[in-house]
Amino acid sequence: MVPNSPDEDQSRERFEELLSSSQEHAADMLQAAHPADGAAWLLDIDEDDAWRVFSMLDADCQARILEYAEDELTSHLVGRMSTPDLREVVEEMPTDEAADLLGEADDRVTQDVLAALDDKTAEELRQLISYDPDSAGGVMATEVITVSPEMRVGDVVKQIKKQSEEVEGDLGTFVVDEENRPVGYLSDRDLLTNNIHELVEDVMVDPFVIEVHNDQEDAARLIERYGLQALAVTNANGALVGVISAEDASEIREVEADEDIARMAGTSTGQQTRLPILRRVRQRMPLMMLTVIGGVVSAKILAYFTGGSPNAGAAGEGIAQTSDILRYLPLIIGLAGNVGVQSSTILIRGLATGEIEKSREWRVLGGEIGVGVTIGLLCGIVVMVASSLLELGSPMSTFGFSVGAATTLAVGWAALLGCVTPMGCRSLGVDPAIVAGPFLISFSDVTGSVIYILIASALLL
Amino acid sequence: MVPNSPDEDQSRERFEELLSSSQEHAADMLQAAHPADGAAWLLDIDEDDAWRVFSMLDADCQARILEYAEDELTSHLVGRMSTPDLREVVEEMPTDEAADLLGEADDRVTQDVLAALDDKTAEELRQLISYDPDSAGGVMATEVITVSPEMRVGDVVKQIKKQSEEVEGDLGTFVVDEENRPVGYLSDRDLLTNNIHELVEDVMVDPFVIEVHNDQEDAARLIERYGLQALAVTNANGALVGVISAEDASEIREVEADEDIARMAGTSTGQQTRLPILRRVRQRMPLMMLTVIGGVVSAKILAYFTGGSPNAGAAGEGIAQTSDILRYLPLIIGLAGNVGVQSSTILIRGLATGEIEKSREWRVLGGEIGVGVTIGLLCGIVVMVASSLLELGSPMSTFGFSVGAATTLAVGWAALLGCVTPMGCRSLGVDPAIVAGPFLISFSDVTGSVIYILIASALLL
Repeated sequence: MVPNSPDEDQSRERFEELLSSSQEHAADMLQAAHPADGAAWLLDIDEDDAWRVFSMLDADCQARILEYAEDELTSHLVGRMSTPDLREVVEEMPTDEAADLLGEADDRVTQDVLAALDDKTAEELRQLISYDPDSAGGVMATEVITVSPEMRVGDVVKQIKKQSEEVEGDLGTFVVDEENRPVGYLSDRDLLTNNIHELVEDVMVDPFVIEVHNDQEDAARLIERYGLQALAVTNANGALVGVISAEDASEIREVEADEDIARMAGTSTGQQTRLPILRRVRQRMPLMMLTVIGGVVSAKILAYFTGGSPNAGAAGEGIAQTSDILRYLPLIIGLAGNVGVQSSTILIRGLATGEIEKSREWRVLGGEIGVGVTIGLLCGIVVMVASSLLELGSPMSTFGFSVGAATTLAVGWAALLGCVTPMGCRSLGVDPAIVAGPFLISFSDVTGSVIYILIASALLL
Repeated sequence: MVPNSPDEDQSRERFEELLSSSQEHAADMLQAAHPADGAAWLLDIDEDDAWRVFSMLDADCQARILEYAEDELTSHLVGRMSTPDLREVVEEMPTDEAADLLGEADDRVTQDVLAALDDKTAEELRQLISYDPDSAGGVMATEVITVSPEMRVGDVVKQIKKQSEEVEGDLGTFVVDEENRPVGYLSDRDLLTNNIHELVEDVMVDPFVIEVHNDQEDAARLIERYGLQALAVTNANGALVGVISAEDASEIREVEADEDIARMAGTSTGQQTRLPILRRVRQRMPLMMLTVIGGVVSAKILAYFTGGSPNAGAAGEGIAQTSDILRYLPLIIGLAGNVGVQSSTILIRGLATGEIEKSREWRVLGGEIGVGVTIGLLCGIVVMVASSLLELGSPMSTFGFSVGAATTLAVGWAALLGCVTPMGCRSLGVDPAIVAGPFLISFSDVTGSVIYILIASALLL
């Protein structure tokens, strides 16, 4: 099913219907579905419902769904699993996925699970968990088929038949010397097209290799640049310890691009639109406070050169000079611009990656505007008190109220613009990213200025 | 070789040395190197040198390098190739790459090449070129191995041996019915692990399918969501017309993420740092003009409410009221912020994707600051004339000069910040994306305000 297609929407609806009538039937549907679909459906329903249906599945199906699940869902489900159940699931998984899973569990639970596993698997997992998650070791799988250069192609095929249960299917086979150092690589296609009597060393190609502590992004770059199916990961002695697939590389790059985008906009990564509003507000407030501080510093510096403070105005408190009002304009439009860009960034990426399904559009829109308005309100209060204290020495004043109220309105308005613009672009078939950059900022600057000056001229001039 | 590693830097240097001593030896080195490396080296040298060395290679090696080359290099090299040479190269390539290549050539040249090819290939290429480049048809390969469900596994292997020359190695095999509709899929691993006497229909899995006119992003999402090696592309009758690989999907997503990032920052995509400075300035000026217009509109609206224009000031032209000065502050810091964000975006993505190699860091830094200063100068002139005309009715005035000069300085300074911050972060091991977002904007707002008010208070107050 194409994500976000009518087909998928139907299945999702059918699943949610079943859930409210019979959780057992919902579990059956989950068991029969592709685990990637199952993981997507579970992410969208109530946490308690998700847990109840998930706990009805057998360990094998649980393992498959967790392999496809977003971190958020994994962490929730793993947090509620008993240690024996978790052990069963871990045993069903490839080691790299199992290590990621244990990374989401409680430290004590992880230790219990490791203690319950057989020594070899536990040792492998401990080793994997010990690598920096951003290193090649942090993403590699340890299950890999290795053969020696003196073997015949037919023997390699036999060995693959024997090991095929344990190893992922699209990695090919690495050829290693006596010290387990990679000396060659054979794709499955090589094995199919060469005669079974050929010597491995005659048909293998040079392997591509990366050291286990190298950055995972270097691994991804290597795989993409040379179009590799698999990259060998070696330890300090050059011995093969794992393998990174093209699929891993694509995930690394996707996560990295999302991180860059989110950080540049000052939000955090991954499935933002699914988090509770207050958590999103909390994540974004620190940078907003930075913007407030920057704006207040600007206003004070400008006051130094223009020599004004509202109480120095002609008619005392309540009647400020226009220059005093304008000194706070950069703060207001800067803050509004930031919030607008954050909202539009979250929506644009959510639409591009498929995080925002058709059925969730309105919910997402409402949530994001809610976040914007809350941030606007909080920043408005801070700005009101700060500007009032700094300019007039008292925490409440008409001047402070004007600036604070304008902040709240301008930020809320910018959040609305930042949400409606990408959605509108999508309906019109225009790429939202084009309109949501400088265009959005310019428009929010102009309208923010109008909002501020309307309020200020009504209350202060 | 890991991109940007000391190894690669050495090879690159060696190649550039050879180039200046003997172009024939450089061509030999290129012929022996991995085509991905060759494509990267050619991109970085003088265009005429690149063409001379490239033209010494045989058609097969030329085809391989062009498969890995960035559009910019491809378009340059293809533009200089003779029609017979281009035909030879096209014959060496898979159809999807050949179609992309012809997309970079002149229309007349494309027609000549197609006329010189055999009818079947020409027809396939015409069809491929006719698809929207952003559709599934625009990225699919047409070389695909198909088998029928009644065949035995051993027969499939025989057929793969026969066709292996023409078809990419990591796509697996699609099973089709009599109407050529995909009904199953076999990975190479499936063929290796199953007995050669098994019936295809007993071991095949369900295929994943997308329609040829669907968006390429849907294809990429499908491949990523379900972890596919290959996706079948069908026409309106459901018949198989091509296949999209996991590698294609990863390219689609990378390009898409880069596009989103670039558009949100108001720059254009792909290898920005390699374009001539004036072309980059030209690409970015339209959106800067939008920002200027927004700023001027703001200033006029504010004037309406605050009732000022410099010539209404106490002492006539030359001495403006502070409120008149401050009305142009949003324009200046908005413009500076935009340019700073563009510079930092281009550098952050260039560093992340490996576009900016270690050896090019200083060149890139200089180029980007050059772009920023040029944009600052142009915007400064426009702002000077516009503000002067609007406020005082004459194209030149001390007031206009102050605003224009501050624009140029603030924009240039923001470009410098936008370049130095990511580079500095990288040296310190901090993710540049964190510091380059709202932090950069706040800092550029404060410093931009100081620049403006210093100039204005020196000249006007």
